[in-house]
Amino acid sequence: MIKKLAIVGGTHGNEFTGIYLLKKWQESPEMVARDSFDTEMLMANPQAYGQNKRYIDHDLNRCFSVADLANDSLSSIEQRRAKEINQQLGPKGAPRIDFIIDLHTTTSNMGPTLLITKKGKFYNQLAAYVKMHMPDAMISCDEDDKTNEEHHFLSTVALDSVMVEVGPVNQSVLSHDVFEQSAQMTLLILDFVELYNRDEVPELPETIDAFRYIESIKLPLTADGERAGMVHRNIQNQDFKMIEPGQPIFVTFGGQEICYQGEKSVYGSFINEAAYYDNNLAMSLLEKITLSTR
Amino acid sequence: MIKKLAIVGGTHGNEFTGIYLLKKWQESPEMVARDSFDTEMLMANPQAYGQNKRYIDHDLNRCFSVADLANDSLSSIEQRRAKEINQQLGPKGAPRIDFIIDLHTTTSNMGPTLLITKKGKFYNQLAAYVKMHMPDAMISCDEDDKTNEEHHFLSTVALDSVMVEVGPVNQSVLSHDVFEQSAQMTLLILDFVELYNRDEVPELPETIDAFRYIESIKLPLTADGERAGMVHRNIQNQDFKMIEPGQPIFVTFGGQEICYQGEKSVYGSFINEAAYYDNNLAMSLLEKITLSTR
Repeated sequence: MIKKLAIVGGTHGNEFTGIYLLKKWQESPEMVARDSFDTEMLMANPQAYGQNKRYIDHDLNRCFSVADLANDSLSSIEQRRAKEINQQLGPKGAPRIDFIIDLHTTTSNMGPTLLITKKGKFYNQLAAYVKMHMPDAMISCDEDDKTNEEHHFLSTVALDSVMVEVGPVNQSVLSHDVFEQSAQMTLLILDFVELYNRDEVPELPETIDAFRYIESIKLPLTADGERAGMVHRNIQNQDFKMIEPGQPIFVTFGGQEICYQGEKSVYGSFINEAAYYDNNLAMSLLEKITLSTR
Repeated sequence: MIKKLAIVGGTHGNEFTGIYLLKKWQESPEMVARDSFDTEMLMANPQAYGQNKRYIDHDLNRCFSVADLANDSLSSIEQRRAKEINQQLGPKGAPRIDFIIDLHTTTSNMGPTLLITKKGKFYNQLAAYVKMHMPDAMISCDEDDKTNEEHHFLSTVALDSVMVEVGPVNQSVLSHDVFEQSAQMTLLILDFVELYNRDEVPELPETIDAFRYIESIKLPLTADGERAGMVHRNIQNQDFKMIEPGQPIFVTFGGQEICYQGEKSVYGSFINEAAYYDNNLAMSLLEKITLSTR
């Protein structure tokens, strides 16, 4: 039973969509209210938003492992903000809030994507419900071997959570489509939680297609660590499309193609995501999986 | 006769395409060398690039009016850098460099665009030559009533100049297509200058279609100056497509459409450009014009 739910926006200060959705819903809270649970809203990183940056000192969405939250020597702006949010919504491990929806956007052409970091029938049914009402929705799972305590995402302050990740939209920009898709997916999640709480989850498809994170790969780099090339036009904007062994995935600035060296077909996400350039990450690689709702 | 030409990149520190094209051409200067003139290359705002920002204190591409260049009290990072560049390529009014190509990118879906700020047969022929070899190229003119001295663009340090403006690409990101289109357009400009110098300009179409800047319009704002809406999905990515009177161009966060109130059809460019959010500019409006090469 989910009794308290929080919708979080602005975890990244230059992802305007979630921030403006919060403003909209704070003015019209009835849109996100449901009978069986309380809905709260939280603007996560107002200082970064004030400076129109993803973050000021550290990526806030990497500050929420239990160990880091307990480490008082971590005192950057975001490390302190993480502790405040943990007090407000958590504390992680025994949180006041049962479920968090964290709103994100991507510069990649991922469409409306539901990011799931935990296994279980609840999540599979939630994903199926969202996809049933929003056929364009993509389901991307990263339910790795970490315990919830080790996860560093803001949303893992609650025991249960999802991230709404919609693109393509530039950082610090609003897109009508991305705004509406983000709103629609969030409202569908609220609807599902309401049905789940009332034990009224409708008949769902037995299985749905989804993707599971395998690894991230880097842009081509020189021996000195300088960027030596870029994402190949054949996979630019082709998030969730198949990448086959031997297919060009990068091109050097001199025009030489670099091909995918893996042994089996994969799928890409966060392809050429602006926020990942700091670390020269080019994309995430995924495998296709099937989730069962039974 | 153009004897000295400069290719400038990084006027905006987060427009990576021009910066990486400069790196490429600095390693292979023969690619931008032509027989009848000298080619130099200049990285305009390395400090902003180092901080991965468009600019640090002021937009460098607004610092080049003759009055501002002569005003020693203007001493921000970019205002000082403008004076350095003016010494290196200028001085404006009697410049060492005859022609500047300034490389820019946009987050808007403008494709490869040649921006022209001055009237004359030379420019019309240049535009026709570029378009003949690159049919996707768009020609956008802003030859307003300002004299060259009043113009604040970096490129106006030379008596003659163009800007290469290609999109869509995120700030701080490289796109294979945008990189190659920017390179192709730049090389075509160099080729044309070479032909012009040799008095060997080939037969060109008598006229070409182009666009002329009319005005910029703002995002919907509340009485307090807060953003109240966003660019409508029907014109998102529709740069250089017709906008008709009465057509929805904005939508409020509440979902209300706001229609174009002008009396005649116009065309948009820089639609929802990320860099213009600071000033809440939503797009530029243009009229279609015909340029004559005779």
